[in-house]
Amino acid sequence: MKALLLIAHGSRKVSSNQEVADLADKLKQQTSPFALVTHGFLELTSPKVPDAVAKLVEEGAKEVTILPYFLAAGMHVTEDLPELLSEAKANYPQVTFTLLEHLGAADLMPSWILQQAARDK
Amino acid sequence: MKALLLIAHGSRKVSSNQEVADLADKLKQQTSPFALVTHGFLELTSPKVPDAVAKLVEEGAKEVTILPYFLAAGMHVTEDLPELLSEAKANYPQVTFTLLEHLGAADLMPSWILQQAARDK
Repeated sequence: MKALLLIAHGSRKVSSNQEVADLADKLKQQTSPFALVTHGFLELTSPKVPDAVAKLVEEGAKEVTILPYFLAAGMHVTEDLPELLSEAKANYPQVTFTLLEHLGAADLMPSWILQQAARDK
Repeated sequence: MKALLLIAHGSRKVSSNQEVADLADKLKQQTSPFALVTHGFLELTSPKVPDAVAKLVEEGAKEVTILPYFLAAGMHVTEDLPELLSEAKANYPQVTFTLLEHLGAADLMPSWILQQAARDK
């Protein structure tokens, strides 16, 4: 079973964390290759990433795609995420984990921005 | 002349600011309704937003679409940006400014995430 894990930084602002949870809910409703979708935070709020991973594995995930919901490759992206990936691989050797680039690095970002800029005018 | 202004927070990390500048450069290269594209930061680095706005107006912008390059509606998005918008409108009454929602609030975000998750696998 394929799973998508959205990772965000986590904020002191409850509404910002809720935005991420709402986004994960919308992703669950979309038709996609991912039977399971969830989100995890690095700091300040829960669920934390290791708990999100554990939940996905319990639910039967065999392939977990991890998308860092970050616009810039700060230390969290370049250091914390590879470390969390290593831990997940060590804890669940029977599961395949794929860490994607952070969202801001997506080749399609310029197109997405233009879609949005044209849409809301 | 239509212009697109991408606003990001600004980082102490030079490479993170460069990511935004590179994105603005890519946007310039795309076919779009925007004859002018530039970026501005709120903090920590330049160009700051007011300078970016001034440059666009000098270059002949009559309609400026402002896209907050943020994933969450933190205080910067909810307070600083409306204030910068008011200032821009006051300083350049002959120019139309439209402040879009922050990128994370885009209706299309779930689709974009799935595009990215499918693409990089």
